[in-house]
Amino acid sequence: MTTTAVTAEAGRTAARTRTMKAVVKAAAAPGAEIRDVPVPVAGAGEVLLRVLRAGVCGTDLHIWNWDRWSQGRIRPPVTLGHEFVGEILELGAGVSDLKSGDRVACESHIVCHTCIACRTGNSHVCENTRILGVDVNGGFAEYVTVPAVNCWRVPAGIPLEVAAVMEPCGNAVHTAFSGPLSGRSIAVTGCGPIGLFAIGVARAAGAAHVFASDVSPYRLELARAMKADAVIDVRTENLSERVAQLTNGRMLDGVLEMSGHPTAVRDGLAALRMGGRMSMLGLPTEPYELDWNRLVIFKGITLHGIIGRRMYDTWFQMDQLLGSGRLDLKPAITHVMPMERFDEAIGLLRDGRAGKVVLVPWGEKS
Amino acid sequence: MTTTAVTAEAGRTAARTRTMKAVVKAAAAPGAEIRDVPVPVAGAGEVLLRVLRAGVCGTDLHIWNWDRWSQGRIRPPVTLGHEFVGEILELGAGVSDLKSGDRVACESHIVCHTCIACRTGNSHVCENTRILGVDVNGGFAEYVTVPAVNCWRVPAGIPLEVAAVMEPCGNAVHTAFSGPLSGRSIAVTGCGPIGLFAIGVARAAGAAHVFASDVSPYRLELARAMKADAVIDVRTENLSERVAQLTNGRMLDGVLEMSGHPTAVRDGLAALRMGGRMSMLGLPTEPYELDWNRLVIFKGITLHGIIGRRMYDTWFQMDQLLGSGRLDLKPAITHVMPMERFDEAIGLLRDGRAGKVVLVPWGEKS
Amino acid sequence: MTTTAVTAEAGRTAARTRTMKAVVKAAAAPGAEIRDVPVPVAGAGEVLLRVLRAGVCGTDLHIWNWDRWSQGRIRPPVTLGHEFVGEILELGAGVSDLKSGDRVACESHIVCHTCIACRTGNSHVCENTRILGVDVNGGFAEYVTVPAVNCWRVPAGIPLEVAAVMEPCGNAVHTAFSGPLSGRSIAVTGCGPIGLFAIGVARAAGAAHVFASDVSPYRLELARAMKADAVIDVRTENLSERVAQLTNGRMLDGVLEMSGHPTAVRDGLAALRMGGRMSMLGLPTEPYELDWNRLVIFKGITLHGIIGRRMYDTWFQMDQLLGSGRLDLKPAITHVMPMERFDEAIGLLRDGRAGKVVLVPWGEKS
Amino acid sequence: MTTTAVTAEAGRTAARTRTMKAVVKAAAAPGAEIRDVPVPVAGAGEVLLRVLRAGVCGTDLHIWNWDRWSQGRIRPPVTLGHEFVGEILELGAGVSDLKSGDRVACESHIVCHTCIACRTGNSHVCENTRILGVDVNGGFAEYVTVPAVNCWRVPAGIPLEVAAVMEPCGNAVHTAFSGPLSGRSIAVTGCGPIGLFAIGVARAAGAAHVFASDVSPYRLELARAMKADAVIDVRTENLSERVAQLTNGRMLDGVLEMSGHPTAVRDGLAALRMGGRMSMLGLPTEPYELDWNRLVIFKGITLHGIIGRRMYDTWFQMDQLLGSGRLDLKPAITHVMPMERFDEAIGLLRDGRAGKVVLVPWGEKS
Repeated sequence: MTTTAVTAEAGRTAARTRTMKAVVKAAAAPGAEIRDVPVPVAGAGEVLLRVLRAGVCGTDLHIWNWDRWSQGRIRPPVTLGHEFVGEILELGAGVSDLKSGDRVACESHIVCHTCIACRTGNSHVCENTRILGVDVNGGFAEYVTVPAVNCWRVPAGIPLEVAAVMEPCGNAVHTAFSGPLSGRSIAVTGCGPIGLFAIGVARAAGAAHVFASDVSPYRLELARAMKADAVIDVRTENLSERVAQLTNGRMLDGVLEMSGHPTAVRDGLAALRMGGRMSMLGLPTEPYELDWNRLVIFKGITLHGIIGRRMYDTWFQMDQLLGSGRLDLKPAITHVMPMERFDEAIGLLRDGRAGKVVLVPWGEKS
Repeated sequence: MTTTAVTAEAGRTAARTRTMKAVVKAAAAPGAEIRDVPVPVAGAGEVLLRVLRAGVCGTDLHIWNWDRWSQGRIRPPVTLGHEFVGEILELGAGVSDLKSGDRVACESHIVCHTCIACRTGNSHVCENTRILGVDVNGGFAEYVTVPAVNCWRVPAGIPLEVAAVMEPCGNAVHTAFSGPLSGRSIAVTGCGPIGLFAIGVARAAGAAHVFASDVSPYRLELARAMKADAVIDVRTENLSERVAQLTNGRMLDGVLEMSGHPTAVRDGLAALRMGGRMSMLGLPTEPYELDWNRLVIFKGITLHGIIGRRMYDTWFQMDQLLGSGRLDLKPAITHVMPMERFDEAIGLLRDGRAGKVVLVPWGEKS
Repeated sequence: MTTTAVTAEAGRTAARTRTMKAVVKAAAAPGAEIRDVPVPVAGAGEVLLRVLRAGVCGTDLHIWNWDRWSQGRIRPPVTLGHEFVGEILELGAGVSDLKSGDRVACESHIVCHTCIACRTGNSHVCENTRILGVDVNGGFAEYVTVPAVNCWRVPAGIPLEVAAVMEPCGNAVHTAFSGPLSGRSIAVTGCGPIGLFAIGVARAAGAAHVFASDVSPYRLELARAMKADAVIDVRTENLSERVAQLTNGRMLDGVLEMSGHPTAVRDGLAALRMGGRMSMLGLPTEPYELDWNRLVIFKGITLHGIIGRRMYDTWFQMDQLLGSGRLDLKPAITHVMPMERFDEAIGLLRDGRAGKVVLVPWGEKS
Repeated sequence: MTTTAVTAEAGRTAARTRTMKAVVKAAAAPGAEIRDVPVPVAGAGEVLLRVLRAGVCGTDLHIWNWDRWSQGRIRPPVTLGHEFVGEILELGAGVSDLKSGDRVACESHIVCHTCIACRTGNSHVCENTRILGVDVNGGFAEYVTVPAVNCWRVPAGIPLEVAAVMEPCGNAVHTAFSGPLSGRSIAVTGCGPIGLFAIGVARAAGAAHVFASDVSPYRLELARAMKADAVIDVRTENLSERVAQLTNGRMLDGVLEMSGHPTAVRDGLAALRMGGRMSMLGLPTEPYELDWNRLVIFKGITLHGIIGRRMYDTWFQMDQLLGSGRLDLKPAITHVMPMERFDEAIGLLRDGRAGKVVLVPWGEKS
């Protein structure tokens, strides 16, 4: 199991007979463990994947930290990891549209397909959602099983580390595509990994101007690498004033809000033109207030609450952007490291010393 | 000038030679005065109207009270009144699409036509808006001048008191039409006059269920008269629980928020289905906080800030609803009284003892 | 199996041990036969239904006639019938969201769920569609199996004969909802059963005016019964002229084209306002020409090709309209008769002496 | 009047006292004349422009040829030219948002502002449209008057020859923006000047793939210069087959139809994916037939008839694309020549030896 050149047959045999290594949230306390666990078996409608690469998300940090949200949601032990790319080894009963050897990225939301949201094209807000690596075992492991319907074939020519982060990139695509982009002036507030991806997405999708704001010089430098037309350090610069200069007074058509920070939301709303839109993916840590009259109602603003990815419009849009070469995510991927060093990856995130960190499972060639 | 049968010629002569009576905000203090003022003259692109009926709005109450907003905005003396229907007496230079004798309702927002908002179909959020009866002399008078472009011919067969309130009804239409209506389950939170109109609009526009909530039994009774499918007294009933019963657990597709009350907003958001929309016209008295994660982001909600009326899509939609007879506003119009008794009308509003109050100018037959 | 009061248990037993009666396209020639065939068995993801009522469609007439389309598509023997309501008797493996005894109407398109169309919310144009009663055995029988995902629970209070025609009513809903309806002036060209349903749908969904045209006095009478605001006999009346009178010169916002007749399409386009839309469900018998410049391009018209029903937005919208009582289909259902008399039903359709014909299977109480 | 450095004052004086040269359709016969005509005077709401550059359109060729359409529409004498950029010399009465010296491109459609289309945001299909250079004197002259509302300030940094063709580029923007672009696979059928512009627009607006088809190697070479991802010579290649190869079987999301040729329309529809859209700007020379079932209805296609430019959303979108540098039109502008040589320009168009031809008025520096 040491190279990507392993044959599918050998892989299948190995998967059936061995245990595997996995990053497991083992206890109701901070931290995570690398453990030997059984290789999972693909049930009806599922596939078994050999994990090729996996991305680390801020949610993983929350789970590592065992914060209040984690305490209410996670039931240890669970294998972490909801961003990954893998190669299909085995097909469960009834799976016919995928085949062994296919390279797939995975939608992390396992939905019910039967609630009204699911039945009307809104599975991203299915009330019965279970999330890979949160509610069920995920992809920080040598192998993982996922519903076949959650698999998306990776477009040809996409590097593994990019394919690994299609799930969070899909958040960026969903946010960006929730309002007009072509020819618009767009700001991304908050340049963590999804914000960085959103810069690239907005550019590739035809925004006329893409600005990025943050309070971290490190992240603003990454924003520049993602080809933001201008970056705004809101520790020292006023967002509305800079936007007014940059747009010749026209202000913003849209804000992709990736920080969850009340100040970013308020400043972003202030920097929108009359009738603009803000799409909010960033999660605040607690409720906060707005001057609704001035910032929302009198301006005729539209606010979109964004979660997950549209299934599977978002994946199709992302596939087209990545597959055509219009969108390049590599500048936002600052670290590729062995999965064995998961705790170190968590440390990089905690300290704000990374963009996106991608992990290489045991036995995979990096 | 005592009957509607006055000839246009006589009206024009009278308008040129007489003063007229008007309700004037005369001083920077609470109250309003009935004064004799000069009859205005139609400038280029304007028309002179004989006012036939005028509606009283909550904004008039704010101005009467001389509240903080009024103190910052109003420059006395100004003739009040931004909801009215009139008959065209004279055409200013360059006006060719209207003619003497036309009966018209008026858009109250006088916009610049040249800012980016105006140039891209968003005049309702023109930054240079001046409002009739607020920034320039309005229609609580025997005569008023307005830009010809602000006039909308009243559909045949519409009673005068209904034509008088097309402006606030347009707020309801704009709010309702800002998201899907046909076949949807809609709640109107707040049953003041615009909320009452919104009930009728949502029904006429094809909503499958229209629910209405308020804290006033008087207003809930009016909501019933407007044919709400159910009314919910939120002093004693939980909105989400009632909605769950009424929709068999499906919850709301849309909320038309007319109260500006933080509790109504929060309860309305809670009662929305995943992926629903809230369109917010009601103005809160001060900033308030939301649990954004739970109420907006995780639910994938869209919020629309609504102001004014789309120019003139909203008027077209309203014209079609009223003109076809699908929409009847009369049950929401609880009082028709002489304009002379303006202070009494203000008192009715202040005490919550009225739906919409319509005023009859001096000399008009009621 | 003679009454609807049969217990589910008895039904299941009967289904397993007996043959059943069915209307079968038995040979590559005109006609159809009533035959004894085995009761089908629900496979994985399927349910077995006892058929309660079934609708006869123009497509069934084409198949009966063995026209060119049928010759190219149908592979006898196949049980006919793609419009029906049934009661669930048995659940195949993996079905969990339905239960024995549920009353369901059925989407007739069995789709692949994996093509790009299916993956992006456009299953109604899945290239791998198989149709019940056309490509696989349908519902003109005592029992039928369908994929569980194709079942839609019938709203409470809906009569069986109405539930039986939700499939074709869904065509009408899809057509009507493919453009703006609320407050619009809409014409339905062609008053066969789907056209008749469309009249009701457009009214219930909030159209301001609904006009209907046809060449058959019988069908125009049914259009009146469905509460068209005006009916237009295009043998003797000019569509555009009548529409101009009826709309005070505004013309139509939308045409729901149900006839497939070139003249209806051309006249409908001519009667549209500038910028209007035509949604085309009717199938022409052969290619035809348009004066594109005059009728489409210079007018800025949008044309929608419509097929099937959006899965399952259309069903949700229809459910809301029917369940709320806003939409009543009964006036369009002119005949309810035993399934045994299928040939007679075909005759009624052939002769234009029926609106919608609903069949009662053997043993069901009518 | 010989250089662009002429002062505004001198220009104004000259305009008042001199005649000017203009390209005039002088008689109801083929050809056009260069004549001395009076310099026009800006009426109320108008501005007087010194013309800096003007584009030649296929419509000008039709008028030169005095074809059937021209015979029915043109009333000689009229100064030709509906694509131009100018500098404002004088403001008519009531014009306040523009100023002397502003450089502006012009919307060529002079609309009524009062019909239902105009009142509801659809001025591009105003029934009372008069077109510059067709119905009223246009810009193939030293000076021209236009309504102030028709002026759009040219973004900074745009070359004069590009500013001159914003009007036809607006056709391309309108066509492209009438459906989804971001991340889509788009084909432009017909690579005349507007088709060439559309290639650039679709790329700048975020299309993932932009293909172009034509029968002229010369125009296909220009399509390459506009950075089409692939060009398809439909004399020798099958559009659907090439598209299938290029998209890995996914086919097209959208076709921008610029040729008006029936074969291009049919092939374009065949190359669309299920549920795709075709936006039709090209004008056929006569009615033609379609196999509606196969090409439109069964595929769930949307067809948009496109004319003119949305006022002024299209101009805003174009301004953003040009002003940001995302869109470069220069490769499509193959000739810049003196207006004096208008007949030669017409010859280039007639012979298919040009992309866009731009004219330099008398006295302007080229």
